[in-house]
Amino acid sequence: MQNQNSQSFPTHIDAAGDARMVDVSAKSPTVRVATAEGRVRMEETTLKAIEAGNAPKGDVLATARLAGIMAAKQTAGLIPLCHPLPLQKIDVQIVADDQLPGYQIQATVKTKAETGVEMEALTAVSVAALTLYDMAKALEKSMEIEGIRLVRKTGGKSGDYRRS
Amino acid sequence: MQNQNSQSFPTHIDAAGDARMVDVSAKSPTVRVATAEGRVRMEETTLKAIEAGNAPKGDVLATARLAGIMAAKQTAGLIPLCHPLPLQKIDVQIVADDQLPGYQIQATVKTKAETGVEMEALTAVSVAALTLYDMAKALEKSMEIEGIRLVRKTGGKSGDYRRS
Amino acid sequence: MQNQNSQSFPTHIDAAGDARMVDVSAKSPTVRVATAEGRVRMEETTLKAIEAGNAPKGDVLATARLAGIMAAKQTAGLIPLCHPLPLQKIDVQIVADDQLPGYQIQATVKTKAETGVEMEALTAVSVAALTLYDMAKALEKSMEIEGIRLVRKTGGKSGDYRRS
Amino acid sequence: MQNQNSQSFPTHIDAAGDARMVDVSAKSPTVRVATAEGRVRMEETTLKAIEAGNAPKGDVLATARLAGIMAAKQTAGLIPLCHPLPLQKIDVQIVADDQLPGYQIQATVKTKAETGVEMEALTAVSVAALTLYDMAKALEKSMEIEGIRLVRKTGGKSGDYRRS
Amino acid sequence: MQNQNSQSFPTHIDAAGDARMVDVSAKSPTVRVATAEGRVRMEETTLKAIEAGNAPKGDVLATARLAGIMAAKQTAGLIPLCHPLPLQKIDVQIVADDQLPGYQIQATVKTKAETGVEMEALTAVSVAALTLYDMAKALEKSMEIEGIRLVRKTGGKSGDYRRS
Amino acid sequence: MQNQNSQSFPTHIDAAGDARMVDVSAKSPTVRVATAEGRVRMEETTLKAIEAGNAPKGDVLATARLAGIMAAKQTAGLIPLCHPLPLQKIDVQIVADDQLPGYQIQATVKTKAETGVEMEALTAVSVAALTLYDMAKALEKSMEIEGIRLVRKTGGKSGDYRRS
Repeated sequence: MQNQNSQSFPTHIDAAGDARMVDVSAKSPTVRVATAEGRVRMEETTLKAIEAGNAPKGDVLATARLAGIMAAKQTAGLIPLCHPLPLQKIDVQIVADDQLPGYQIQATVKTKAETGVEMEALTAVSVAALTLYDMAKALEKSMEIEGIRLVRKTGGKSGDYRRS
Repeated sequence: MQNQNSQSFPTHIDAAGDARMVDVSAKSPTVRVATAEGRVRMEETTLKAIEAGNAPKGDVLATARLAGIMAAKQTAGLIPLCHPLPLQKIDVQIVADDQLPGYQIQATVKTKAETGVEMEALTAVSVAALTLYDMAKALEKSMEIEGIRLVRKTGGKSGDYRRS
Repeated sequence: MQNQNSQSFPTHIDAAGDARMVDVSAKSPTVRVATAEGRVRMEETTLKAIEAGNAPKGDVLATARLAGIMAAKQTAGLIPLCHPLPLQKIDVQIVADDQLPGYQIQATVKTKAETGVEMEALTAVSVAALTLYDMAKALEKSMEIEGIRLVRKTGGKSGDYRRS
Repeated sequence: MQNQNSQSFPTHIDAAGDARMVDVSAKSPTVRVATAEGRVRMEETTLKAIEAGNAPKGDVLATARLAGIMAAKQTAGLIPLCHPLPLQKIDVQIVADDQLPGYQIQATVKTKAETGVEMEALTAVSVAALTLYDMAKALEKSMEIEGIRLVRKTGGKSGDYRRS
Repeated sequence: MQNQNSQSFPTHIDAAGDARMVDVSAKSPTVRVATAEGRVRMEETTLKAIEAGNAPKGDVLATARLAGIMAAKQTAGLIPLCHPLPLQKIDVQIVADDQLPGYQIQATVKTKAETGVEMEALTAVSVAALTLYDMAKALEKSMEIEGIRLVRKTGGKSGDYRRS
Repeated sequence: MQNQNSQSFPTHIDAAGDARMVDVSAKSPTVRVATAEGRVRMEETTLKAIEAGNAPKGDVLATARLAGIMAAKQTAGLIPLCHPLPLQKIDVQIVADDQLPGYQIQATVKTKAETGVEMEALTAVSVAALTLYDMAKALEKSMEIEGIRLVRKTGGKSGDYRRS
């Protein structure tokens, strides 16, 4: 067994379809910011109950905001090919929207690293939305999470992006 | 300090707004199933590139499916007031939808426990969608995650639910 | 190498000092509840600033309560020889105490399992206290966490415990 | 978007190659035990240095044993299609083997669940071996982990297994 | 739904009480060190039993030390608004104190980052203390964790701190 | 209790055997790469069944590769004294080997940090091998993981290493 040396292992078998965490070591660490958004749509009565503080599990918005912040820090553990990054700012905002009716969620994440933080911002929005659902699901099961998307990103060689 | 006994701590300060993980110990452990769904909408060219196996990070659908399965197991660590549960089945399906254009995602989770697995199914769909975004974001940054919602749940005292 | 069979491995080398996760399989799963408490002592001015909502990182008590709840679910990942358990209720309460001055923290955890949840309750109190420290440390670095202890436990063969 | 109902999602697209966490809900929860083993082979001088307590990172065996125990509890987070299970006993033993030379590692895990704990036992052995490598790698980088395999399993419908 | 653009989301809703992970990107990464301490107080007979190696779960101090080290690495996952940081040194010391009676715990953590590691040091002490409790709780349930506090910190713009 | 000051705690009790995460702050962050390898040996019929896509849990190799990549990111949470590091590339390759018979696994990890990534590469190989076992264990329980070792490392003051 000792004589089965590693040379029997092919050097370049980077098959087309194989998942890989791409090499970002040639990039420079620069400040990178990403903002994402999403919505939770619900019945008007559900929104009113939450706003009145009547959700059965307690403070819906504070819990959802914190869950979003904490989830951003878990992004590399959730999204298989995301690079683990230091994060220098995470901010999650949730505002009621009577027109929707429901809640608008927005998250901004900042790093100084070789790659961007779009996935961290999108993950923060998604988990904040899921938590909002969890906190209010005894009131309404038909709530729907929608419109999760990148709003803008800055920093990095590939240039800035702003949703038109 | 020793004489500051625990009796000075009020017994019932369960303030209205305080978040809490509700007591499910009075419920019976029964088989519970939940199915959730969601979509990732994208440009037609992005869909075609993914279907042709040209996404730069590798196999998009296998990676997204696995990420969804693994995320379902992390639900109680992500959603602050979710109960940690044993899970007996997790299934994540992703199918291309030319009409969208994009991908339809569906997750089914099963447990035998005192409370349901809606959040596990919704989390699986959300993280599968986020992973799909991550795998293809070099092709298109404007993809949008939408329609994340509960399709049906069975088991438990509160009765079955089926989205109308 | 194939012929190095497992019989060469001694059957009973359970050395006295070796750490082990004890076998609880002979015990019956019963409802078990544990309550723990602790305190964060601080300057009176710090307490007043927190009560006035002037802590620089935001809502101190809601954040600390949630952190305690979420930490209880991570107990088996933190305490090396704790058994991973389903948890059926986690409740963390924090109340201001002008006499201390500071905050009293109390956590109650419930399971239906073969072993108790003292460590889960103590972990919830500890992490709530640490979070409270983190949220207010820009106001005062000399805060001190004290009095973390088990208040009572019920359920299980070893009998109930109540702190005298 | 509202009218894109879930019926457009095929019911049975369980493609042959798709990874899935199989449904174990039809199985009965019974006591199941699995034992796995493995070895770390090293130079004789390395073994002597470890046995003499001269490894630069400190107590090699106690650290490796604990790492194995804690890793068993993380198995469902590491192995994508493993079911999260309650564990009722984890025991990791490590003994010096002058003939190897190196260390023999054995782990036994017990649960009362619908599926077995082979992967938990194998994961405990693997991470104990990796930790042993980490603790001693300043002494020798050419150490090799080998012989990681299932020794026996009991419990469950598929019958007992004992390595011949 | 497509025409609900992100401009409907207010730019500055940074409400006073909302929890946020503060932006540290304007700070310079410098070497930062923090030392924290704490105590576990117990009956004299409990201390003697531990010192004699008679704790039922095995090696109390080695297990508690390792648990503290590993917990320091999990700080950002436990404390909601802590920044995830690289850590360059973690040291946990535990010494018997006959006068207490019990154990004194001290942890020192070092990083090169934009923010300090007080919470990592305090978390290491707290989890080491909890683990010590867990390892010995079959001997005595009335043990108490106390005196968890910052001893000193160096590095960073806000200046050094040393407990007087 | 207040007057038990920290000076009673000895400054230098760095006992010989105590585990510690060594201080790497004096080292320079440089690009470091490590490659590790391992094998899973099995019956010829098992290899053929996997190659034919007949493993009961689905796509064996894609799942094992992803599990290896994700595990590399969890290394500091698994190996007690490993430093948490940013990772800039993770690549896991698995190829069938008819001669073994079984699979050869190779992982390469890259960072820019003060310490190397040998453990990340070895962990990626180990967890990929464990996952491969899990995916195929319904076909054969006697599979064996072997030959897990470091192939080469570059970067860092201690010089490069290449297995002879």
